[in-house]
Amino acid sequence: MKLYGMNRAPNPRRVTIFLAEKGIPIEIEEVNVAEGGNRTPEYLAVNPRGLIPALVLDDGTVIDESIAICRYFETLHPEPNLMGRDAKEAGVIECWQRRIEFDGLATIASVYRNTQPLFANRAQPGGGPDTAQIAELAERGRILLPGFFTMLNDRLGESAYVAGDRYTIADITAIIAIDFARWIKVRIPEDHTNTLRWHAEVTDRPSYAAG
Amino acid sequence: MKLYGMNRAPNPRRVTIFLAEKGIPIEIEEVNVAEGGNRTPEYLAVNPRGLIPALVLDDGTVIDESIAICRYFETLHPEPNLMGRDAKEAGVIECWQRRIEFDGLATIASVYRNTQPLFANRAQPGGGPDTAQIAELAERGRILLPGFFTMLNDRLGESAYVAGDRYTIADITAIIAIDFARWIKVRIPEDHTNTLRWHAEVTDRPSYAAG
Repeated sequence: MKLYGMNRAPNPRRVTIFLAEKGIPIEIEEVNVAEGGNRTPEYLAVNPRGLIPALVLDDGTVIDESIAICRYFETLHPEPNLMGRDAKEAGVIECWQRRIEFDGLATIASVYRNTQPLFANRAQPGGGPDTAQIAELAERGRILLPGFFTMLNDRLGESAYVAGDRYTIADITAIIAIDFARWIKVRIPEDHTNTLRWHAEVTDRPSYAAG
Repeated sequence: MKLYGMNRAPNPRRVTIFLAEKGIPIEIEEVNVAEGGNRTPEYLAVNPRGLIPALVLDDGTVIDESIAICRYFETLHPEPNLMGRDAKEAGVIECWQRRIEFDGLATIASVYRNTQPLFANRAQPGGGPDTAQIAELAERGRILLPGFFTMLNDRLGESAYVAGDRYTIADITAIIAIDFARWIKVRIPEDHTNTLRWHAEVTDRPSYAAG
């Protein structure tokens, strides 16, 4: 088994924190996306989509979506549980994971990838055709982001963690989204006391230091 | 329990086909997105994100992501299995589901929502702030889509179904993506014989008629 990733990159960090919570040690093969390491013939031979993280199983199967990699390990090692023990938990956790991923993480990524000079001709992540940056898409992201932060703060006013009364994968995605937001100079609003309370707690866990 | 959806809309259809495969009957409360029914005060009181489908459990819990709704029913009724029976299956199926969703469905949606006059000031789905259409985003989608169709055809050259040797939720997302592509006048390329072979088969299942 081999896990390709990149130190500090948002999606690989989801897997790293997840594995730290599970207590599963795994070495990471570094792919430097900033330097285009995900678009080299060598890496595209491993993962044609050119995305990280990517988990290659011993039989050669490639799993190159961070949440699918987490699902693989969750099914192998259900405890400590991060993706739900029964139908309601599984549905609610996956729902919050996706809300945070789409309204938060993906929106932040759209601002970053469409403004950062490093990605001038590869605004779309992965190994596909060149794509120009779109300034209006970054502007749209900045219009949408306050709604994400409000949703998160409201939610954390009614429950201790994002998906309920315990730490789950939805918290991991939210942690990563909030760290990623700093790359576009967006921080948790000062009056979002619920989010700030939660954030202090989840970033104090040993798994955060691991990711 | 109440399920809000919309006849013929891509994401609600994922749930409808999924439930038909499971043999779970459920009535759908129609929300007409074309007429802005998802942005009325009444619907936003049910689902503040303004998205469909949304499943409201008897205790009031709202699950408003189609794949999370499917996960809820999969956990309640694991057979016929559509999301994986062991770690490798669960990881591979979720990986393919997400590949098809992001590279296919979301890309097609970005073309549609950013060109269709009906969505002129609400290019971003849901109940959030108004968002203008971005022509360049639709153009980017058209640049990326051939890669999605090639990935799908290559994959279906090596396995009977999208995620392996049996029908799963990854096939459902692919069916919906291909139908949605017709809305932007994109069809399976004539020389993609693997995809055409698979498509004839999966659209012949009773679940397709149900969705």
